[in-house]
Amino acid sequence: MTEVLVAGVGATDFGEHPDRTGRELFAEARSLALERSTVSDTDLDALYYGNFLGATAEEQNHQAPLMAAGLAGPDLEATRVENACASGGYAVADAVRAIRSGDVDVVLVGGMERMTNLGTAATTATLAHAADAVHEVGAGVTFPGAYGLLADAYLERHDASHEDLAHVAVKNHANAATNPKAQYREEIDVADVLEAPTVADPLGLYDACPITDGAAAAVLVSPEYAAAQDLEPAAAITGSGRGTDALALQDRDDLTRTKAAEAAADDAYEQADIEPADVDLAEVHDCFTIAELLALEALGLYEPGEAASAARNGETTADGDLPVNLSGGLKAKGHPVGATGVSQLVELTKLLDGSHPNADAVPAATTGVAHNAGGTVATASVHVLEEVGA
Amino acid sequence: MTEVLVAGVGATDFGEHPDRTGRELFAEARSLALERSTVSDTDLDALYYGNFLGATAEEQNHQAPLMAAGLAGPDLEATRVENACASGGYAVADAVRAIRSGDVDVVLVGGMERMTNLGTAATTATLAHAADAVHEVGAGVTFPGAYGLLADAYLERHDASHEDLAHVAVKNHANAATNPKAQYREEIDVADVLEAPTVADPLGLYDACPITDGAAAAVLVSPEYAAAQDLEPAAAITGSGRGTDALALQDRDDLTRTKAAEAAADDAYEQADIEPADVDLAEVHDCFTIAELLALEALGLYEPGEAASAARNGETTADGDLPVNLSGGLKAKGHPVGATGVSQLVELTKLLDGSHPNADAVPAATTGVAHNAGGTVATASVHVLEEVGA
Repeated sequence: MTEVLVAGVGATDFGEHPDRTGRELFAEARSLALERSTVSDTDLDALYYGNFLGATAEEQNHQAPLMAAGLAGPDLEATRVENACASGGYAVADAVRAIRSGDVDVVLVGGMERMTNLGTAATTATLAHAADAVHEVGAGVTFPGAYGLLADAYLERHDASHEDLAHVAVKNHANAATNPKAQYREEIDVADVLEAPTVADPLGLYDACPITDGAAAAVLVSPEYAAAQDLEPAAAITGSGRGTDALALQDRDDLTRTKAAEAAADDAYEQADIEPADVDLAEVHDCFTIAELLALEALGLYEPGEAASAARNGETTADGDLPVNLSGGLKAKGHPVGATGVSQLVELTKLLDGSHPNADAVPAATTGVAHNAGGTVATASVHVLEEVGA
Repeated sequence: MTEVLVAGVGATDFGEHPDRTGRELFAEARSLALERSTVSDTDLDALYYGNFLGATAEEQNHQAPLMAAGLAGPDLEATRVENACASGGYAVADAVRAIRSGDVDVVLVGGMERMTNLGTAATTATLAHAADAVHEVGAGVTFPGAYGLLADAYLERHDASHEDLAHVAVKNHANAATNPKAQYREEIDVADVLEAPTVADPLGLYDACPITDGAAAAVLVSPEYAAAQDLEPAAAITGSGRGTDALALQDRDDLTRTKAAEAAADDAYEQADIEPADVDLAEVHDCFTIAELLALEALGLYEPGEAASAARNGETTADGDLPVNLSGGLKAKGHPVGATGVSQLVELTKLLDGSHPNADAVPAATTGVAHNAGGTVATASVHVLEEVGA
């Protein structure tokens, strides 16, 4: 399997950007990634770009050529990928595959979402386009409700409580506090989570990620190109997996497992020739606190039910055995949907190459994993990222 | 470059399907493709799926896992591609690339659009999401208007008239008349086109393609899989090219050329190791009559300005030297946006393997080309399809 190198990464601050268009946000992210990579934009062969709800937020579909505008690659191609909240992760996966195919050597991968201009109610309705319009949304389900059902199922099956979930939120806010790119940099405690207004029982306000504007980008290259150009890659993508499940929860056998992520992880690990035990840190899709537990179990980092006790025992904090979402995660760093999967790659790369403000927590880390999920994990991508030369 | 084989193709009738959901339409297309291919759905590795405006038409994004539902491939992955009206062509291009990467051997590629339920005015507004929301739509441009500007530029530059454009419409209606899948199977004459109400000067009602519901699918496989399973492939994809241009017309140097399609054609021909002179027939993106002329010139099949005289002289009719849009094209077969690029592959495959009702027009054809365009050709894909063993 051809290794794909990460030549550079970049991202905007995540948060509210009411005065900036999507194209402006993405231009900042791509410039930062190109600058770090030292790759000239005249060498770019392709853009793979993730966006979810641009048709609603900016009445703008067909964003790929717009996001490629101004780049000098003479035959630059541009393709948009949309798999709901996993759009960014699938853009990364398609970019990796493009390089593996031999068709291209230098790919800009990115994602962007503008959401805060819609307001909370319209955003929630628009996000629901990622669920089954007939069998879920037609019955009144939105994503807080759907993840509330998943949390109910998990807490009922396992020896776990809302307090365990609260530890996920507390940890991710603590990590975000030292990440200047993060939307919420205020620390919270378990009581804050448990006393917050209920959004969808058992989940409360602090169990949910915010609504966010932002963009992220990375320059991926083939080993041949990197060698010819004498690049100093920041990291290598050694595994890229995808998985799919039924869109609607009613069509799943088991609400306490996320089959799509399990399949994606199996693929990614096999390609990278690693085991879960080799993973030093993880960025996972914690759109709700329960989602982080499901992710860690799908990734094989904990047995079913044990991610809850891991959260309770602090095993996944910055100074725990397996730091998870050192960036702050979707929960506190923010979740600009189409950008999120790419942002995970950005954060992991910086954590591995030591340029992240939270990198001190993982000085010896060589292997990270990124887990991005669409809807209630009807789609998932998993990427294994390794330090170059590790 | 790894050759990719077309094991089977299928499509719904194109037209109005007010009582069928998108998932029902796609289920029909994929079943037909799987049946023809003789591939078991348990062997499917991946779905690449094109759709443009599902967020509006059915309030359904994240359609890829929905369209994969019920397929038995145990680790089936599913990814949606969106590049406006070229979404289907890019789904094909991504499917080809996936097989070339070595990641997968058996890929279902498809596309679907439901449009007629929106009505004409809402559809036109929604289609405009493929143009630049700030610099074009904000100034009042819709697609009929944008293609009217392209027609103006072309007719002014070259020795051509609206009557030349009319020949494109007449030809494509004639071809559709014998294609039972086509939406408009009534023949028209030049006077009908010239006397029709103006939509966007100089283009009239018969210069424009209809609004259409429909789905198309194909099963693509690696040569290794085809050999191991003793398949009888219907055709081979020997070239797959992509190109990008500025999204807004105001940012283009020359409105009489479509740079994105030229780049895509160059790539596809180089991969297939053919010249334009080797092309026996073409399915091109004639969303408006002018678009067919621009496409044929971008494909190098005619010099700039000469596609108009070719239309006038009948060179591209069913019994001409180079039959174009024997299916009826977008103009008369119909244009369910996300399905169109895949439908071109379906039609070309059937024309090459002799199973198309219009195949008698091209008994000796071995090489076809498919040209799919997004917006005013800000994105384009070009595929070269060859008879197996030719």
